[in-house]
Amino acid sequence: MQVELVTIGTELLLGFTVDTNSAFLGQALGAIGVTVARRTAVADRPDAIRAAVEEALRRTGAVITTGGLGPTRDDLSKKVVAELFGWPLRFDEGVWAELGARWRRMGRELSSANRCQAEVPEGAVVLPNQWGTAPGLWLEGPPGLVVMLPGVPREMRKLTEHEVVPRLQARAGERVIRSAVVRTTGIPESSLAARVGPHEDELAPLSLAYLPATTGVDLRLTAWDRPPAEADRLLAAGVERLRALAGDHAYGTEEDDLAAVVLETLRRQGMTLALAESCTGGMLGERLTAIPGSSDVLVGGVIAYDNAVKTRQLDVDPGLLAGHGAVSLEVARAMAAGAQARFGTTAAVAVTGVAGPAGGSDEKPVGTVCFGWIARNQSEAARVVFPGNRREIRERACQYALHCLWLMSRGS
Amino acid sequence: MQVELVTIGTELLLGFTVDTNSAFLGQALGAIGVTVARRTAVADRPDAIRAAVEEALRRTGAVITTGGLGPTRDDLSKKVVAELFGWPLRFDEGVWAELGARWRRMGRELSSANRCQAEVPEGAVVLPNQWGTAPGLWLEGPPGLVVMLPGVPREMRKLTEHEVVPRLQARAGERVIRSAVVRTTGIPESSLAARVGPHEDELAPLSLAYLPATTGVDLRLTAWDRPPAEADRLLAAGVERLRALAGDHAYGTEEDDLAAVVLETLRRQGMTLALAESCTGGMLGERLTAIPGSSDVLVGGVIAYDNAVKTRQLDVDPGLLAGHGAVSLEVARAMAAGAQARFGTTAAVAVTGVAGPAGGSDEKPVGTVCFGWIARNQSEAARVVFPGNRREIRERACQYALHCLWLMSRGS
Repeated sequence: MQVELVTIGTELLLGFTVDTNSAFLGQALGAIGVTVARRTAVADRPDAIRAAVEEALRRTGAVITTGGLGPTRDDLSKKVVAELFGWPLRFDEGVWAELGARWRRMGRELSSANRCQAEVPEGAVVLPNQWGTAPGLWLEGPPGLVVMLPGVPREMRKLTEHEVVPRLQARAGERVIRSAVVRTTGIPESSLAARVGPHEDELAPLSLAYLPATTGVDLRLTAWDRPPAEADRLLAAGVERLRALAGDHAYGTEEDDLAAVVLETLRRQGMTLALAESCTGGMLGERLTAIPGSSDVLVGGVIAYDNAVKTRQLDVDPGLLAGHGAVSLEVARAMAAGAQARFGTTAAVAVTGVAGPAGGSDEKPVGTVCFGWIARNQSEAARVVFPGNRREIRERACQYALHCLWLMSRGS
Repeated sequence: MQVELVTIGTELLLGFTVDTNSAFLGQALGAIGVTVARRTAVADRPDAIRAAVEEALRRTGAVITTGGLGPTRDDLSKKVVAELFGWPLRFDEGVWAELGARWRRMGRELSSANRCQAEVPEGAVVLPNQWGTAPGLWLEGPPGLVVMLPGVPREMRKLTEHEVVPRLQARAGERVIRSAVVRTTGIPESSLAARVGPHEDELAPLSLAYLPATTGVDLRLTAWDRPPAEADRLLAAGVERLRALAGDHAYGTEEDDLAAVVLETLRRQGMTLALAESCTGGMLGERLTAIPGSSDVLVGGVIAYDNAVKTRQLDVDPGLLAGHGAVSLEVARAMAAGAQARFGTTAAVAVTGVAGPAGGSDEKPVGTVCFGWIARNQSEAARVVFPGNRREIRERACQYALHCLWLMSRGS
């Protein structure tokens, strides 16, 4: 089955809004074997909407629209599509009652100006929207199939999952496009390709894409045009194969966050963690505490931005600072030891570096970061020069700190 | 002048890539008076590309394409468009030499397989791409105007700014669409509307949009279809008016970050800052240290996630913790005082709260956050219940902490 997407909104064309709805719909539809053949964005103008929907129906016979269903533009896309079907708009008492109830729950009252929101093309199926105000609409007749969804991303997503996908699944193809992602870190794309490349044939018929980002390279496997069960089986086997090939660099799948993986590993071992952050300035703490329940592992930390803080709050010997400088393996080790002792934890991480743009030298260029780790009664230290701007250097340093802590804490 | 955008890439339709290029182009073109009339996304297939470009040319006579210019798909969109113009592809020695030089700088060698990247439709103007490999192309002839840009966002943006906008500006309309943004925080959309609404007529002919986000409401003013100088003059006056109406809640314009505004205010007053973070876990430090040069103001901080840390690292009286609980005005005040004393600064901020999803109670529901501030020899404390999930509560708490610190430090 093929569909076209028509996204409605002058804001989209002006670039005031980035269209994230289309990407969501593309993936959700591909996963049930529905192919998006084309996508068109048009302004909130009846002629533009009508032309786009008509052309799309002529090509594929099925269209999903987003946007143009809100109270102020209600008479636009709904009217245009109803006309296209030759169906008059009728006032729907059920929709009106629903709307009123929802508004009252928000402490507001509907006015007669809202009545147009309860108008529904005769013959359309109403897709109830419990996550917002404008319901979705499902029109099917001689012109073809038109599904109208609101443009608010959350409402569009929920309606797609709960109302559109189940209805389309019944008539969708028996062959789907599905993907799976393996997340890696600490290895450049070229080295990963050298490891994985020679085995790519074994992954067939899955295709493999490398998706490099600041904090690592994601590997995306895609099963094209396969029966759903076969696609899932192929992907599961492919993920296992990739994890084995990437070894210690593979820390998770899909949306897994390395911070959550680290916390879970520490928790299983009954370990507790303290942080000493200089150049990352709290970013490591932020990432760990973003995970609910992190408090049973993470005890606390020191943001030791100034050298005096390293001495006074982390007991770093001033002689080390004077002799080796703040960005040194010696100071990183001392910071980790100081954090562990002060906070009474079994593990600690310290990060000190030059995030730039200023502060670099020949010996310690911008991007130089020194790390100290303590876990399972062992200590490690490392010095790395990261590429990129201030943000990228800090993000890479955090990911590196978490990755090594993960490897040490699981005992590998 | 009207143009259509045609974005090329199967990944776009599958939803593996979110199309940010179109939003950028929409704004960049609107700012010089070029209207994007429609936007079409098609797969990497010659027939689909050809149909989309032809239809678009028929409607507006001018098309900008993105994507489909890389080495692997080089023979697709370039060939299709060249055929449409009836222009053969010719090998361009200059482009080939450029490519070779760029690859050598990256330590790589071109192979004969890359030669197609140096093929250019006879009659096309080459738009040199010093930010990547595939150059842009400018084709103008009987079918109309087609500008072909690479799909890599950075390259597309740079080529648009340096090559496309200057060329279009000459023939673009004398009337433009331009916007300006005033950033506010600490005031709900409805209260802001109550302040600004009665004066909206004074802003005419500018239109006003409220853009609520987690950390505040942005106000966007837009000048529609005006001569450039008039648009800029109207926007400058409108921004001044909105800033006055929003008062202390307006902290900046466009992309201004409140953390940078706070640092600048503290720096001007010769103040130094220490942090004590519980529920934000380093997020406040992360935001401040993201700003280059923050080290002359921010001395450091304590991530006091565990209660024992509040006592041992911030000298909070255990009696306060036992009597009032960790999330209390008393403890927030004591944390700020402890941070200030420990780090020897003139200002301090403390944040302690229940970010959820667990840990809430009837008395202190999820979202309850207590703050302590010290600045200019004054101290303040506040208790707020923020709505939202864990991430939103933490982001709102940081923004609130920064906003009040800003007001105290500038002495208002």
